[in-house]
Amino acid sequence: MTYEPSCPVPFSAYEHVTLAHGGGGRVMQRLIEELFLRSFGTHAASAHDAAALSLSGVPMVTTDAFTVRPLFFPGGDIGSLAVHGTINDLSVGGAAPRYLTASFILEEGLPLVTLARIVRSMAAAAEASGVRVVAGDTKVVERGKGDGVFITTTGIGERLAETGPARIRPGDAILVSGPVGDHGTAVMLAREGLEVPPGLVSDAAPLWPTISALMSAGEIHCMRDATRGGVATVVAELARATGLGARLDEEAIPVRPEVSDACELLGLDPLYVACEGRFVAFVPEAALPRALDALRAFDAQAALIGQVREAHPGVVTIRGPLGGERVLDIPNGEQLPRIC
Amino acid sequence: MTYEPSCPVPFSAYEHVTLAHGGGGRVMQRLIEELFLRSFGTHAASAHDAAALSLSGVPMVTTDAFTVRPLFFPGGDIGSLAVHGTINDLSVGGAAPRYLTASFILEEGLPLVTLARIVRSMAAAAEASGVRVVAGDTKVVERGKGDGVFITTTGIGERLAETGPARIRPGDAILVSGPVGDHGTAVMLAREGLEVPPGLVSDAAPLWPTISALMSAGEIHCMRDATRGGVATVVAELARATGLGARLDEEAIPVRPEVSDACELLGLDPLYVACEGRFVAFVPEAALPRALDALRAFDAQAALIGQVREAHPGVVTIRGPLGGERVLDIPNGEQLPRIC
Repeated sequence: MTYEPSCPVPFSAYEHVTLAHGGGGRVMQRLIEELFLRSFGTHAASAHDAAALSLSGVPMVTTDAFTVRPLFFPGGDIGSLAVHGTINDLSVGGAAPRYLTASFILEEGLPLVTLARIVRSMAAAAEASGVRVVAGDTKVVERGKGDGVFITTTGIGERLAETGPARIRPGDAILVSGPVGDHGTAVMLAREGLEVPPGLVSDAAPLWPTISALMSAGEIHCMRDATRGGVATVVAELARATGLGARLDEEAIPVRPEVSDACELLGLDPLYVACEGRFVAFVPEAALPRALDALRAFDAQAALIGQVREAHPGVVTIRGPLGGERVLDIPNGEQLPRIC
Repeated sequence: MTYEPSCPVPFSAYEHVTLAHGGGGRVMQRLIEELFLRSFGTHAASAHDAAALSLSGVPMVTTDAFTVRPLFFPGGDIGSLAVHGTINDLSVGGAAPRYLTASFILEEGLPLVTLARIVRSMAAAAEASGVRVVAGDTKVVERGKGDGVFITTTGIGERLAETGPARIRPGDAILVSGPVGDHGTAVMLAREGLEVPPGLVSDAAPLWPTISALMSAGEIHCMRDATRGGVATVVAELARATGLGARLDEEAIPVRPEVSDACELLGLDPLYVACEGRFVAFVPEAALPRALDALRAFDAQAALIGQVREAHPGVVTIRGPLGGERVLDIPNGEQLPRIC
């Protein structure tokens, strides 16, 4: 990144992260107090204690490590991603996100302006979603033993509806909340140093507003965000987990032209490319019209993409543009490492 | 580490961690299901969802990243440490530990037997403390972009007593729960390839049983585990945070002879060396006799090491063995990086 005069680092005589920044002494305290606590709006007095939470309803928890490379990509950065990724895992679990914890593993030599930019981006993303960062930790590893910064966030929320794979039934409609593959494609182009078309940015965004509206519109059986492995892997995994079959319609799955062009260039299938602001919902047929309306109020490209069936237990088939039907497989690895 | 025939890795055709193990596909699913879920006793069906918690009382949360090197050291390993470190942060906050989440950042090339040994050690430590690991995540970074394995754990517990720096009062007795410096010294000797004397092992252990007994014995104003920076830094930080002074008696602070000998060899001051199973407690004078008895039921070397005073706000002094008094400072960095 380039140095931004608008992003000063008043808290340090250092320009780069040193081992002392993770050492428990004054240098670390100053970093915590003047960057982390100030950005996250937490008081210094509570910095070393466990944080008390105020929750109504059943608490739910989820955790995610973020190792995305590059740290900054079109439409986001590791900081905002570490907020959105984790609160979205709560949201698809039917829980309103309330609190986050954040742990940082920094590599010695990371410019402090880079860290400051990431932390402020996290703080802005958390604030925009009404989520409080209440606990954190910082460790520093020697140069060459890390990769700039890794972040683990843990999210805690309040369950508002019980959903999950066990509720999926034959006949359920399978919906997607918007066009798929933008996040992974944007990150991959940025990583490879390829030109990113102006309209192509990560879809990373908080899902709770959409999910909250969807849950108000009617019964939802299961939701899952289409992150690692993309929309194809999510549906295939759920088929495997439930022992039900599913049929998808490839033409119905929205993919933006910039994304399909870039995927062709990169040799990727957008159905397997990670999103960070899209989810798949399984809803009973009766709830379909209202559910689709609710999703389309947030994204006009939200779509019905398939249906659950009893036939072919554990298997997902997909009908191609020419009418042929093939089995949709879960890949062994992934097309794209370090996308999230 | 050496290969242990008693620790087979049935779940993989691989001998080492590959990028595919973090890629979201079949290889990762198999690792999760056959190592993580089996070790932690979680059901595969819940693997991808946020976990629901059952808590009574005010929930408390804390998080910690673990980057200790070497991964295995006398008396523990990164897995057991990642459990003890985090549940101890809850315990000193007056909260009974109930749940953990665990996120793993693995370096490509890590032997899978090493990972299996670490995960099983975590599972055993969690079970022994009655804590359930309810959510997790795995990411893999390229060789040379990590260091074997980093773990972040987040702990969630139920607050049983309100304690904290704001409750510390002039006149409070300062207690330590046992001899200090064992953890950092043992890790440092192991890292340097020096011979570790038979009696010198990390003190890493769950504090909750001791703390629970201490809280039943009478009023406690504040507790803190003496991790990064050791017992000296903890007391100095609390003096700074509260604006009160404190006086310590160096001769009263228990240090085992193996530890002081090793510290002399390594050029360290044991008062600044991290512990992972010792804590400092601030108790009102009236509660002192019963508090000390409660601590000594767990460790005969638990001791009264000093007192809080109004004089010299924010400053801690320590009386040396010859009667001289000096100011105890918070170091800039730390003597020992990557101890936890």
